[in-house]
Amino acid sequence: MGKKITMTEVVSRDGLQIEPNFIETEYKISLIKRLMDAGVKRFEVTSFVHPKYVPQMSDAEEVMRGLRDRPDDVTFCTLALNEKGVERAISAGTDEINFTFSLSETHNGKNSRRSVSESLENIKSLVKRADEVNIPVNVGIATGFGCPFEGIYSPDRLIPVVTQLTDWGITSILLADTTGMAHPNQVKQTCQLIIEQFPGVRLQLHLHNTRGMGAANVVAGIEAGVTQFDSSLAGIGGCPFAPGASGNICTEDIVHMLHLMGYETNMNIDKLLLISRNLEEKLGKSLPGQLMKAGKSTDLHSKEWQAVTSK
Amino acid sequence: MGKKITMTEVVSRDGLQIEPNFIETEYKISLIKRLMDAGVKRFEVTSFVHPKYVPQMSDAEEVMRGLRDRPDDVTFCTLALNEKGVERAISAGTDEINFTFSLSETHNGKNSRRSVSESLENIKSLVKRADEVNIPVNVGIATGFGCPFEGIYSPDRLIPVVTQLTDWGITSILLADTTGMAHPNQVKQTCQLIIEQFPGVRLQLHLHNTRGMGAANVVAGIEAGVTQFDSSLAGIGGCPFAPGASGNICTEDIVHMLHLMGYETNMNIDKLLLISRNLEEKLGKSLPGQLMKAGKSTDLHSKEWQAVTSK
Repeated sequence: MGKKITMTEVVSRDGLQIEPNFIETEYKISLIKRLMDAGVKRFEVTSFVHPKYVPQMSDAEEVMRGLRDRPDDVTFCTLALNEKGVERAISAGTDEINFTFSLSETHNGKNSRRSVSESLENIKSLVKRADEVNIPVNVGIATGFGCPFEGIYSPDRLIPVVTQLTDWGITSILLADTTGMAHPNQVKQTCQLIIEQFPGVRLQLHLHNTRGMGAANVVAGIEAGVTQFDSSLAGIGGCPFAPGASGNICTEDIVHMLHLMGYETNMNIDKLLLISRNLEEKLGKSLPGQLMKAGKSTDLHSKEWQAVTSK
Repeated sequence: MGKKITMTEVVSRDGLQIEPNFIETEYKISLIKRLMDAGVKRFEVTSFVHPKYVPQMSDAEEVMRGLRDRPDDVTFCTLALNEKGVERAISAGTDEINFTFSLSETHNGKNSRRSVSESLENIKSLVKRADEVNIPVNVGIATGFGCPFEGIYSPDRLIPVVTQLTDWGITSILLADTTGMAHPNQVKQTCQLIIEQFPGVRLQLHLHNTRGMGAANVVAGIEAGVTQFDSSLAGIGGCPFAPGASGNICTEDIVHMLHLMGYETNMNIDKLLLISRNLEEKLGKSLPGQLMKAGKSTDLHSKEWQAVTSK
């Protein structure tokens, strides 16, 4: 109770990445500014990838420039996949760099045309460069619980990979349920295993609500000792394997649940809801977040309130 | 692991009740038949209430008649609120009768124009009639965790009411989070308290996913020792306080999670998904269930599968 949970807001990166229409740079900047005002202290802001592959992130430098005057207690992470991306991230003034690979050989091959061990070697060299300029890194293990080609894995599959990463001095891991297939027992057991075997690792969970298990997986993660989670405002950012399904776990829904459970997140839910509803308007479609439809559990109706009688 | 969880399917009652357009009796009957074929063994089939107030349930007798030849191991519960309803339920051949009242004075007053103690006295007399004809009853405690007028309650508020019910010989309680405001810690603590203080009571949870906490609350209930849950196919059945929000916890989403976690429900998810998608077509709108959009965690893509490249 009263324990602090740190949320990293990924709406402007993982959230918007698959949106088919380009969202103007000004909107992205103002979205992040408003989220800072709502209490968000950690962001995955953008990614420095080739604009041909992810046109939505083609304004990465401009977004970073527009947010240069951020408070000191706010941390901006950005994603990079290769040397060029790392140099761009450094020049743009990133606070931390996120690298990522997929634990599934099949998924990793499709995304990067590399084997998992080739991707790990690539990350090793990119981390070296970040170290030179003293920029902390987080390594994301995508499809960390299973993938749509190889199914659900045993948590043991993570051990050699995390061992390798920690041998290289990496101490911050983003364990991702990229396609939202993990279940609460699996999340709990897997996180317990990692925390037990790698006490020096800062374990962050990146969960999706694709099959409705997102909030249950957050609770399972907390029970295992995890205190850091990625989430996206309004729950956007689905995956191509499940068109129409929910995306990332929804920031305001999770924060609402955590506050009810007695955890602290530093966030103002009322402000989050305003920003979330504005984003829904901007994107012009119904977004997965529930709280923006239902309001908070603690919002009270006047006793004079009358239900609209159903026909 | 391998522990059995009993789900009661409420789609044809709580699920359809607020649908504005009348669903033909034939469809309701065939829906329940297909659900029996998918392994559902317990239903809240319909309610015997005044057709003026709930026109969707005006075909209660016909629905029951159309399902007279059901297997012996399937249980049909029906809802009744007064003497006339009880007599209708008995005549229609119900297996069990559900009664309900609201723990919130304000909510109860709005729904029944009675105080909570008047509603309890009413239930006492209705239970007497059910006892005469040897029909088991379940008593639903609506807004059992909180209500939109009075907020979230302390679990202690349940104790005197459950004491009264058990004093009258009632041993089966349906504890309902009617407006989906309960959080996992609250569900766990409340259920632990009831199970501890009333070891003879069969505690069933009726949860809504209004604020995205439904699946997490199921896991919390199981951790407290609950093994019986209501749910609705496709997650329909919202509440008038939160238009557009999710309704009951979604049968196929919850069953999918439970199976992954190693629990048994007797249900065939593939069959449930076919029925759920058919219901979505029938109602002509997107329904809250996630699995019908995403497919099961164990559905594998061919390794030749290619994501549609985003623009």
